[in-house]
Amino acid sequence: MHPRALRDTPVGSVLLTNGDIDHIAGLLSLREQTPFQMFATGEIHKVLADNRIFDAVNREVVPRVTVALDQPFELLPGLTAKLFAVPGKVPLFMEGTEVQTDLEGEQTVGVRLSDGAKTAYYIPGCATVTDKLLDQIADADQLFFDGTLWDDNEMIRTGTGIKTGRRMGHIPISGPDGSIVRLSGLKAAKTFIHINNTNPIWQPDSLERAFVTGNGWQIAADGQETEI
Amino acid sequence: MHPRALRDTPVGSVLLTNGDIDHIAGLLSLREQTPFQMFATGEIHKVLADNRIFDAVNREVVPRVTVALDQPFELLPGLTAKLFAVPGKVPLFMEGTEVQTDLEGEQTVGVRLSDGAKTAYYIPGCATVTDKLLDQIADADQLFFDGTLWDDNEMIRTGTGIKTGRRMGHIPISGPDGSIVRLSGLKAAKTFIHINNTNPIWQPDSLERAFVTGNGWQIAADGQETEI
Repeated sequence: MHPRALRDTPVGSVLLTNGDIDHIAGLLSLREQTPFQMFATGEIHKVLADNRIFDAVNREVVPRVTVALDQPFELLPGLTAKLFAVPGKVPLFMEGTEVQTDLEGEQTVGVRLSDGAKTAYYIPGCATVTDKLLDQIADADQLFFDGTLWDDNEMIRTGTGIKTGRRMGHIPISGPDGSIVRLSGLKAAKTFIHINNTNPIWQPDSLERAFVTGNGWQIAADGQETEI
Repeated sequence: MHPRALRDTPVGSVLLTNGDIDHIAGLLSLREQTPFQMFATGEIHKVLADNRIFDAVNREVVPRVTVALDQPFELLPGLTAKLFAVPGKVPLFMEGTEVQTDLEGEQTVGVRLSDGAKTAYYIPGCATVTDKLLDQIADADQLFFDGTLWDDNEMIRTGTGIKTGRRMGHIPISGPDGSIVRLSGLKAAKTFIHINNTNPIWQPDSLERAFVTGNGWQIAADGQETEI
């Protein structure tokens, strides 16, 4: 690593895959004039542009780079990324009275990452695993995937919410249409990320956690580093 | 305390004294449908309304109450508050090419808090201590006051910024026009809050800290509780 400036960060690039609060609010803590590049689709950049609070992330220090779907680009030196649409919805704070939860466009995207030798996919939000998505990620060596909820009624059952997982744009882990079954044919190493605090897979001794690890999935933890 | 709900918080009311990021971004962590009342001036509410990301703080669960300057209101049962203008500026992300740093209006306010017996003032941002402000806070039993910077050139001198304190809307602690000198005639107990991480009063053995405490001021710390 090169010597760092007084308020530098090790962050070289930020890539946004969604315009919802859990994906963008952290930018407000990266506003101390330290340079990095910010990549996102046009629609996600529009969410930032429409909320002037993000003007505090100075465009002259942090260039906003718009990325088209399905077009590879250099995210960091030696690391190529490509965005692709996955089923999802608009951010919570932009929902109208009718919400389409399996929208495929620029508002919810997955990322293909490659250094030329190995390939990883990062998909923190996904409402359903379509056959198209299975084709997209077939070459994965490592998959990081939406592990928000164990089952679709989890928020309702635990008294923490009134919406199903699918209404929130997140496929459940369990069940015949859940992510474990749908992704079982993949040759990749698989890791659940973006796991809600209601999810029983957090419980060390839970049957759900045993089921997940028994099916060959890892469960990500804060600060985890993964070598591929 | 009454029994709390699953995702309840002990926060009954939130009072915003400024529309800048350090005052409003925390609202994005209070969006889990737990009820409280949100008080602010019309101008500060407009900052929230103009940034749709704050729509995630549901108006049906968290009513937004507009408060006029100089009009007492009930902030919590038994606790009366009153807002008053102090010299300041618009939020960083709303600055134009010309910035007035001693604007007195609804964008930067101080708070008078009273339970009928004792009176406290909370003023986290203040560009200069005017005679009008001294009159306003003359009845304070306790003053919590803007301790952002030790001196006006601190950000420039430490290489952490390019603006003076006054340009940022913050009076320095030291100097003939600084807060210690200007507030020395006040009978209240005095505590510095909103202290920047460049401020040498954080250093346990610094001359600056000794000067501040020697002049009868307290230096606030995280989690501090003050009895008046």
